[in-house]
Amino acid sequence: MTYTTMASLLASTIKAEIFRYSNNTILSEYDSISVEEPIEISIESAKYPRRKNISITMRTPGNDKALATGFLFTEGIVHTTASIKGIIAEDNKAIIQIADDADLDLEKITRHFYTSSSCGVCGKASIEAINTITEYEPTHHQLNVDADIIKSLPDQLRKHQEVFRQTGGLHAAALCDTQGNILTVKEDVGRHNALDKLIGHYFLADDLPLERSILLLSGRISFELVQKAIMAGVQFIVAVGAPSSLAIELAEEYDVTLVGFAKADRFNVYNGNHRIKTKK
Amino acid sequence: MTYTTMASLLASTIKAEIFRYSNNTILSEYDSISVEEPIEISIESAKYPRRKNISITMRTPGNDKALATGFLFTEGIVHTTASIKGIIAEDNKAIIQIADDADLDLEKITRHFYTSSSCGVCGKASIEAINTITEYEPTHHQLNVDADIIKSLPDQLRKHQEVFRQTGGLHAAALCDTQGNILTVKEDVGRHNALDKLIGHYFLADDLPLERSILLLSGRISFELVQKAIMAGVQFIVAVGAPSSLAIELAEEYDVTLVGFAKADRFNVYNGNHRIKTKK
Repeated sequence: MTYTTMASLLASTIKAEIFRYSNNTILSEYDSISVEEPIEISIESAKYPRRKNISITMRTPGNDKALATGFLFTEGIVHTTASIKGIIAEDNKAIIQIADDADLDLEKITRHFYTSSSCGVCGKASIEAINTITEYEPTHHQLNVDADIIKSLPDQLRKHQEVFRQTGGLHAAALCDTQGNILTVKEDVGRHNALDKLIGHYFLADDLPLERSILLLSGRISFELVQKAIMAGVQFIVAVGAPSSLAIELAEEYDVTLVGFAKADRFNVYNGNHRIKTKK
Repeated sequence: MTYTTMASLLASTIKAEIFRYSNNTILSEYDSISVEEPIEISIESAKYPRRKNISITMRTPGNDKALATGFLFTEGIVHTTASIKGIIAEDNKAIIQIADDADLDLEKITRHFYTSSSCGVCGKASIEAINTITEYEPTHHQLNVDADIIKSLPDQLRKHQEVFRQTGGLHAAALCDTQGNILTVKEDVGRHNALDKLIGHYFLADDLPLERSILLLSGRISFELVQKAIMAGVQFIVAVGAPSSLAIELAEEYDVTLVGFAKADRFNVYNGNHRIKTKK
């Protein structure tokens, strides 16, 4: 691939030479491509004097500290920012330095090593298993979101998706207020990474739980995304795509509102309709 | 969720009660949802008399034998159908019984356990690492595919995607001939699972490598998908979505044609333009 990076060696987009076939023309030109690189997430602590690898995942470079801490938090390994002494993120590695007196969930780490080589469940083989790692109790604060606000969100997300606009190749996770304002957007080739980056961002700012905001997702809603959202105290999820059966089941169990197929003129509510209001 | 399964307890779609908001109407109705359930893939062999877990992954039920064998094959753990004595797939478990004299790649299994809790790389932390597990050498058989055939594929895929049509919620991987006929389609909530099902299907039929056909993908092209395709000897990939940078790099290294953003009137070629012909 003939390419030039746009910023650093770990840019989130690069330019590549492509052939664009369109009707009767073939153009050779440079186009923006989403970067995908592996990142190795590891921890260092007094309990593990030698560095311990936790995960290798493909991700789009950028927000690596948020990604790594968001991953550790949503997987139930660390619970507060006080557990973290420092974070080193360089090249394709992120090292989380754990505070000496931190309440590190060693069992979770073991389970991570023991179980999965694949996507998604990371050792949480059942809905029952997830109950053990829920960070925030379902809240009594009740959101009320206007149906028209929901319809406005997909278009707003597109306007905010910088890299997607360039490459057409990224998932996004965004936090919005109930007036439909987008507060933060994170993007990644992996949808779970985009959400880890977003949650990691608020975790590092000591600004969890996210019970008063709307989580907006660019794609489909899997079980894993709802699980991560619940870990961060989210109670209102709006997605452009469809939910899976297990995503709906989990949303029901935790009383999370789940909206799918959100478009400018319509959307579907799969759970938690009581938080949506319409103009009479 | 109030739901009724459409076929068995492990149906690939279920019906769920939803609220459909559209302009000024709110309808309560039943809609089809893609099922997402964890599957545990394990092996049994004389070397491992006790069952050994290899992976837990979220998947859409259906084609579980193809999924499990496709996964073991594309991850380089088994190499031929002769290695497999039997397959038990029931509920959410798939057990591959390994032949006593099979050439089982134990190191790969260890690596699976050792490394990743997350999506994608499964211990293959670099492009170099993947070279060690390539199943088929790049072939000298050269495909030639007409540009108009490529443009016809996305629409054909949509016609063949049964579950997607019902739920709007699934990835698809399909094999097509160079005349644009779709031969086999597999669907899943996870794009890597859809491809494992497709490759597992041909692996079980002793019908690899897939060097004379086109691999058609419904979504974006990640590194992992190109890696799995190369394991099965694929040399021509057409996707509806965008490729990542690492997907392009890998395609270049193995001389795989990579077409993205395929639509009825246009597409982009990211590598291997020499296999595409146009009418003069």
